[in-house]
Amino acid sequence: MKGVDHLAHERNKTEFDVDAMKIAWAGSRHAFELSDRMARLVASDPAFQKDGRTRLGRKELFKNTLRKAAHAWKRILELRLTEEEAGWLRNFVDEPSFTDLHWGMFIPAIKGQGTDEQQQKWLPLAYKMQIIGCYAQTELGHGSNVQGLETTATFDPETDEFVIHSPTLTSSKWWPGGLGKVSTHAIVYARLITNGQEHGVHGFIVQLRSLDDHMPLPGITIGDIGMKFGNGAYNTMDNGVLTFDHIRIPRNQMLMRVLQVTREGKCVQSNVPRQLIYGTMVFVRQTIVADASTALSRAVCIATRYSAVRRQFGSQDGGMETQVIDYKTQQSRLFPLLASAYAFRFVGEWLKWLYTDVTQRLQANDFSTLPEAHACTAGLKSLTTTATADAIEECRKLCGGHGYLCASGLPELFAVYAPACTYEGDNVVLLLQVARFLMKTVSQLGSGKKPVGTTAYLGRVQDLLQCCCDVQTAEDWLKPSVVLEAFEARSARMCVARAQNLSKFENPEDGFAELSADLVEAAVAHCQLIVVSKFIDKLQQDIPGKGVNQQLQNLCYIYALNLLHKYRGDFLSTGCITPKQASLANDQLRSLYSQVIFQ
Amino acid sequence: MKGVDHLAHERNKTEFDVDAMKIAWAGSRHAFELSDRMARLVASDPAFQKDGRTRLGRKELFKNTLRKAAHAWKRILELRLTEEEAGWLRNFVDEPSFTDLHWGMFIPAIKGQGTDEQQQKWLPLAYKMQIIGCYAQTELGHGSNVQGLETTATFDPETDEFVIHSPTLTSSKWWPGGLGKVSTHAIVYARLITNGQEHGVHGFIVQLRSLDDHMPLPGITIGDIGMKFGNGAYNTMDNGVLTFDHIRIPRNQMLMRVLQVTREGKCVQSNVPRQLIYGTMVFVRQTIVADASTALSRAVCIATRYSAVRRQFGSQDGGMETQVIDYKTQQSRLFPLLASAYAFRFVGEWLKWLYTDVTQRLQANDFSTLPEAHACTAGLKSLTTTATADAIEECRKLCGGHGYLCASGLPELFAVYAPACTYEGDNVVLLLQVARFLMKTVSQLGSGKKPVGTTAYLGRVQDLLQCCCDVQTAEDWLKPSVVLEAFEARSARMCVARAQNLSKFENPEDGFAELSADLVEAAVAHCQLIVVSKFIDKLQQDIPGKGVNQQLQNLCYIYALNLLHKYRGDFLSTGCITPKQASLANDQLRSLYSQVIFQ
Repeated sequence: MKGVDHLAHERNKTEFDVDAMKIAWAGSRHAFELSDRMARLVASDPAFQKDGRTRLGRKELFKNTLRKAAHAWKRILELRLTEEEAGWLRNFVDEPSFTDLHWGMFIPAIKGQGTDEQQQKWLPLAYKMQIIGCYAQTELGHGSNVQGLETTATFDPETDEFVIHSPTLTSSKWWPGGLGKVSTHAIVYARLITNGQEHGVHGFIVQLRSLDDHMPLPGITIGDIGMKFGNGAYNTMDNGVLTFDHIRIPRNQMLMRVLQVTREGKCVQSNVPRQLIYGTMVFVRQTIVADASTALSRAVCIATRYSAVRRQFGSQDGGMETQVIDYKTQQSRLFPLLASAYAFRFVGEWLKWLYTDVTQRLQANDFSTLPEAHACTAGLKSLTTTATADAIEECRKLCGGHGYLCASGLPELFAVYAPACTYEGDNVVLLLQVARFLMKTVSQLGSGKKPVGTTAYLGRVQDLLQCCCDVQTAEDWLKPSVVLEAFEARSARMCVARAQNLSKFENPEDGFAELSADLVEAAVAHCQLIVVSKFIDKLQQDIPGKGVNQQLQNLCYIYALNLLHKYRGDFLSTGCITPKQASLANDQLRSLYSQVIFQ
Repeated sequence: MKGVDHLAHERNKTEFDVDAMKIAWAGSRHAFELSDRMARLVASDPAFQKDGRTRLGRKELFKNTLRKAAHAWKRILELRLTEEEAGWLRNFVDEPSFTDLHWGMFIPAIKGQGTDEQQQKWLPLAYKMQIIGCYAQTELGHGSNVQGLETTATFDPETDEFVIHSPTLTSSKWWPGGLGKVSTHAIVYARLITNGQEHGVHGFIVQLRSLDDHMPLPGITIGDIGMKFGNGAYNTMDNGVLTFDHIRIPRNQMLMRVLQVTREGKCVQSNVPRQLIYGTMVFVRQTIVADASTALSRAVCIATRYSAVRRQFGSQDGGMETQVIDYKTQQSRLFPLLASAYAFRFVGEWLKWLYTDVTQRLQANDFSTLPEAHACTAGLKSLTTTATADAIEECRKLCGGHGYLCASGLPELFAVYAPACTYEGDNVVLLLQVARFLMKTVSQLGSGKKPVGTTAYLGRVQDLLQCCCDVQTAEDWLKPSVVLEAFEARSARMCVARAQNLSKFENPEDGFAELSADLVEAAVAHCQLIVVSKFIDKLQQDIPGKGVNQQLQNLCYIYALNLLHKYRGDFLSTGCITPKQASLANDQLRSLYSQVIFQ
């Protein structure tokens, strides 16, 4: 193998403008240059080296991360990096740390839910890292069901304080990153109780540790919840457990932007719309989808390079063996993942637009598109993170035995990515939310209420229930309208069939529970349609660079036709396509694999 | 949650004889009692404790395993355990270690491939662990393609020695467990060269380290290949890298049971049939399938107990939330895995019978069933290990956030199981072997050659191409003959369709390469049929214990109908069932979930 640069050989085959493709991926020249500059900064700094991380015991590993976080902070200050630059820098340091929660959850929570006075008091301390915060929501016994949290915040009118308390074992705060060893403060979510009445779950700023000796304050018990999946991965993070024994905080440490508690303990709704919180949710999920495409692209990059270098079998006359990338079995597993990385990239880009759109509407008190935007982002978060976690593991397998070595990078990539399927909404729970929204949309079709946004196609449900796919040759599958209609028809028909089955139940909730697994399938079909349609939309835009659009078109069809093949049971059982047409799609897919070019 | 024993609540619902079920699982009362006794022995011995393992750095982790391996050996000697008992004890110690390879590969290789004299010389040393051996086959550049190994063993007639040499970087032995730090000897696979002629790959006993100071012998370079997936997992094992610089060994250290090299360097085939090696392969794969069911059962047990204890949503009037095991979304993911554990258990049991049958036939020089047995075990190894690895990860996800903690046991279970998809045959390569055998079987159908064993159904191919599923109600899917025919028809039709597509290619090998992904699908269909049919066969036997057979029947239908639902694209596109029948199968599946009872 010595002396043969297999990657150079593959790269010489490239027929598209590689720099233009990089910019298409990044979204803009500015975004590309910024991330590239930060990547080089981190790569060239020995203090950020990752070698040997996986060999360390937990204590050394954690110290190592503290060291890097401190060094990153020093560099950010020295180089006067912008917040955007600093974010990229932390991203390339590539180790979960308490700073992620401080910058990513603690500060945004104060910004989003705090009053102006609260922001003026707390943000400067947080920006200078004079206090370090975490985000204490989940409890040992409570995750998805936020309304089930047990921690209480009881207003004491005598002292003008809230009493924060953990009444049970299951009410222990559990998971907050940064809590176990580092944080001085937390945003604690608790059931608000004033005058003996409950007022739902709200956020409170609570100091946890002394700013002098860093010891937990009296009445506060903190621990580290122990080892997590993978060698390094989230073991660089001090996810913690926390209980309160009647801890008192001043009234003005409840985040009161939306709901205020007066000196007398009365609850007063502010004129800030509660829906604002959904805007934040759209924002967070948009970043999760973008992160999915990044994580997936890293795994695919490793597996693709390995597949070009690795040779096995097929040697003739004692010559070199066949590159494994030339095997159709390898291609049919790898190339759809490459296509998914781009698909998720572009749907993430579209979600940025959606967030801007939602924000503008909220500012104009227009909440009409919010439920659709909420369902859409929930579904895309679920779809992209599940697919990415599975894809990273598939990439690991595509590297054979070598993928099992940490040296391949893939075991850590998987272990660090896996929680994305659970945090910010368990992926199955999210799909059930999407399904609920779809069933509601279908039930309102007769009432003249027009479905909007990503559900607009359901307005054409009569056509979609009757349409016939007219594919007759494999090439017919290369028409965007044909692909789109097949995906729309499949989703619409699955939704309608589920709605009909639901209507057979006397109690709709019983029906929803009984048929929930089927409803999840319909939600997946709908979400896949969104990704396919946004990919197709993207290709209608002018994408500069020789051959770039052509390559992206190949990937778009690979993404769609691979889904069509994998889920052909849906398409066939709803009569959207015939077995013959499914077989032609599969033929076309094979032919597309031959046209994929790397760099 | 305090004060409520949710498991007791679930257990009280049990309507079957739990002890009888344990025996049905173990295969016999003897097997159950033996494994139970060894499990208790390990659990009660503080020296075998696993707490804290995941927190250790690599060095401490490895020392910890050495300590346990030494302690295990001490206990085995003290208690005069049989080989079977010792195997179970090592199994429950539950940490991969060099002893696995010494007992599982080194000794069996000498027994299987060594002459009587070689066995007399080496086995006593190995049994007393005066020498410790590993199995050095895989190379950095060579895994699946054993014939591509580059290490050479050149006979030197002048000194009556073999010269073992690593000519390239890619010829470095890579992966052998026990090699990196512990082994004194290895079975090394190398290309045999005598008189300038190559004679294929053979095994050689090579001493690696001094028995005095444990240093590698001159000309031998050894290293540890570094960290692998997971915190503990295979990091307790010293997988190594090894190169030889013209190492000389006596001629009698080539394993010569099948092929002998004479003093003059001539190769002489012995009268031991070469096919014996396939018998060993059947044996090894049989144990892998059994191990799959064990690993899967551990994961399912954890996820099931968690699902019974965990409650989320659905609280009414401030009461307790709903146990997550009562959600259909949870059931539809978890119960098919529970069913798979039993399915793999019983197909593993059947493979034991197959191994006995093959061995008896080999002894009688009857090789007729060998290709079928080989294809069948290859397919079942692939099917069960892929499904088990995926299932463990699914069980981890079914435990929500808590599954991400090492405390759940699932991250380590996954990381330690993952390599089963790669070792002893990459799972995709194995499926291609199955596909090749199936295509050959189909092509010979016209010639009057009757397909045997697990391919016997292909003898009825004409019926299977025409049969019509007559399911009209959901309950019709509870007839073994109906289920079996659907799976047989699907597999037969997929095989025939692939064979027809292959016949369109001028060069069959080109066709095989181009259509390989489709061929893998046919192989999977065939293997699933084997598992389903062996599960059905098992239930025809008399299984003692009240309610045991009934529960196993439920699981058998859950296993089969879940596959039918998941792969309904296959069944529909081949016209084996109608969309309506697929939908009825899904209805029946939901109803079966309600009838699953735990312990």
